[in-house]
Amino acid sequence: MTKPLTSRSRLAARTEDITPFRVVEVMERAWALERTGRSVIRLCVGEPDFGTPQVVVAAARRSIEDGIVHYTSSLGLPPLRQAISDYYGERFGLEVPARRIVVTTGASGALLLALAATVDRDDELLLADPGYPCNRHFLRTFEGRPAPVPVGPDTAYQLTADLVAGHWGEATRGVLAATPSNPTGTRIPTADLAAIVSTAHQRGGIVYVDEIYGELVFDGPPTSVLSSSADVFVVNSCSKTFGMTGWRVGWLVCPEWAIDAVEALAQNLYIAPPTPSQWAARAAFSPEVWDVVADRREQFRVRRDLLVEGLRSIGFQVPVVPTGAFYVYADCSALASDSSELVTRLLDQAGVAVTPGNDFGSHRASDHVRFSTTRPLDQLTEALDRMARVLAH
Amino acid sequence: MTKPLTSRSRLAARTEDITPFRVVEVMERAWALERTGRSVIRLCVGEPDFGTPQVVVAAARRSIEDGIVHYTSSLGLPPLRQAISDYYGERFGLEVPARRIVVTTGASGALLLALAATVDRDDELLLADPGYPCNRHFLRTFEGRPAPVPVGPDTAYQLTADLVAGHWGEATRGVLAATPSNPTGTRIPTADLAAIVSTAHQRGGIVYVDEIYGELVFDGPPTSVLSSSADVFVVNSCSKTFGMTGWRVGWLVCPEWAIDAVEALAQNLYIAPPTPSQWAARAAFSPEVWDVVADRREQFRVRRDLLVEGLRSIGFQVPVVPTGAFYVYADCSALASDSSELVTRLLDQAGVAVTPGNDFGSHRASDHVRFSTTRPLDQLTEALDRMARVLAH
Repeated sequence: MTKPLTSRSRLAARTEDITPFRVVEVMERAWALERTGRSVIRLCVGEPDFGTPQVVVAAARRSIEDGIVHYTSSLGLPPLRQAISDYYGERFGLEVPARRIVVTTGASGALLLALAATVDRDDELLLADPGYPCNRHFLRTFEGRPAPVPVGPDTAYQLTADLVAGHWGEATRGVLAATPSNPTGTRIPTADLAAIVSTAHQRGGIVYVDEIYGELVFDGPPTSVLSSSADVFVVNSCSKTFGMTGWRVGWLVCPEWAIDAVEALAQNLYIAPPTPSQWAARAAFSPEVWDVVADRREQFRVRRDLLVEGLRSIGFQVPVVPTGAFYVYADCSALASDSSELVTRLLDQAGVAVTPGNDFGSHRASDHVRFSTTRPLDQLTEALDRMARVLAH
Repeated sequence: MTKPLTSRSRLAARTEDITPFRVVEVMERAWALERTGRSVIRLCVGEPDFGTPQVVVAAARRSIEDGIVHYTSSLGLPPLRQAISDYYGERFGLEVPARRIVVTTGASGALLLALAATVDRDDELLLADPGYPCNRHFLRTFEGRPAPVPVGPDTAYQLTADLVAGHWGEATRGVLAATPSNPTGTRIPTADLAAIVSTAHQRGGIVYVDEIYGELVFDGPPTSVLSSSADVFVVNSCSKTFGMTGWRVGWLVCPEWAIDAVEALAQNLYIAPPTPSQWAARAAFSPEVWDVVADRREQFRVRRDLLVEGLRSIGFQVPVVPTGAFYVYADCSALASDSSELVTRLLDQAGVAVTPGNDFGSHRASDHVRFSTTRPLDQLTEALDRMARVLAH
């Protein structure tokens, strides 16, 4: 059964499927251009331009100066777990006990644990295409299989209970949803998400929901799938909400039945999340920082409005206005036959870096590009002007 | 082939094999005792008591105050990769270009990448039993299989080329070695390690070497397997060397043929290691900090001498004196029929917390306990006195 080693690639089979982000090439080309003196406006990064709030920085500084830099419990610093539990109480009126909250090294660590704990070889999960590429790659890492479900403007680029029911197959193990979504910035309405959960549960499936952009929403208050069911895995993070990307602190809300398995995995797979970052994150859950978040949310909304209107005026289609996150997923089929070519043209001729649709899946990927609103308004305006000039030719 | 979901556990099959550390129960029992006013000396933790050097703390403080807290490249901060490359040059006279060095979130992240990049389902790796438990659990995570090789005092608890050749089977994919070893503190002599590498390479296999305790050695200068071959994966970390456990910075030295695959995995599985921690680690590679390391190495040697002599005098056998790390793997078969019972007795009656052998494998595990020298000399002396009184009964 096993092929002789000498006739095999030394790389694991999964490495064929786990591909680099194409945006990395865009970034490298952008750096090369800048080295020649060109100006490049980066609308390609999934990272807020806002920095880490000062109160958070100060907390990290205190912890390291006090020498509090040893391993924490694998499940995370108890006061941070409690602060996250309190967040669910205060924000959503939900009782999510701290024992169900596992602090992780970024949302990536949370996905790692949830999938390692539940995905057997050849298990399939339904995911929206387009969607965050790492999701399918995590699944492949554990020898599971992504089952991409093509989604479009008719469902706001999101899964629905009907789609889940229609695509459920022999090997389907569950559903991995993200709301708001990267790259589309669209949300799953609360009732629809509850219907997805119940559709999956009726079939004995597991539901995983990525809520990392959940605080950055513009069309009503933040929501959580936990209001519908305690029997889901929720992935979240301090990165986007608090401007804490490089600190690498996320968390997993775990159903009761998985806590022990997840704890054993955490102990073995990474020991503990970074301690100074956990103390920083602890300080982020404070009224002062929530005021900062509110201000940034409003700024992202204003930027979205500017960008969507501007993109439409220069020939992009944005059939569904994003209601969260900091992305606009724009249909460029009227402007180019292949979005990768358009990405190169915009970078080389307009000095605007964007992300090609094929970073997010295969369904109509070459008809789309993703813009990020992670630059200030004046740069967004300048980028639109530059693109208008190039596209007018 | 796939069982209906309703008849299956919702947990993945791997969770049956990935077990919690038994020492966590010891720690919990220790806390419970302390809450009743008892004193407990912890000789059970794999974490130096020495803190993070001040120059390292200062560098982290500067980076966060300057707002340098965004994502880095997935492969790590370029100046840190260069510093690690320089380390191999200065320490071992080796040219290891920075492009082969991947900064990771602890050594755990390095193991994650190396194994995800190379281990297919049902591939087996040879590993020493006793050994670091996470190694076999990482392997299981990616649907590979640990092939434990029982080792004892005759080979200083280490693999040899003969053992590797003798245990190589149909499904064997390579060898995962650690030198010095946790839990035994023993090294693989340079020539023996070179022979292991060549034995594996002759069979088309891959070699992974954990060198995280490589700077904490007492019987001669530090060594690296990279002196024998550039075609190995080396896992290393700032944790034990620099007293930086909670910061979570490690690295992987990658063979040329695996760099691209490892980069794609890093992008997808964790985006980037924590930024403030990387700046801290950058500052650790400085002459000032190496002086601190030299001083700590000497302190660990003195502690080892005290502990080995003391343990022998109260009835433990230490057939091989550890030559590195901060562990003593002691044979307690003359004192108890089961090391887990002895662990409980030492904790409850002597207030000394140690780690049972069955955290490290199954070969003669119930005849052994692991002591850590991560407490100051006076506490080691006190622990020996207390144990002597209990064991005299």
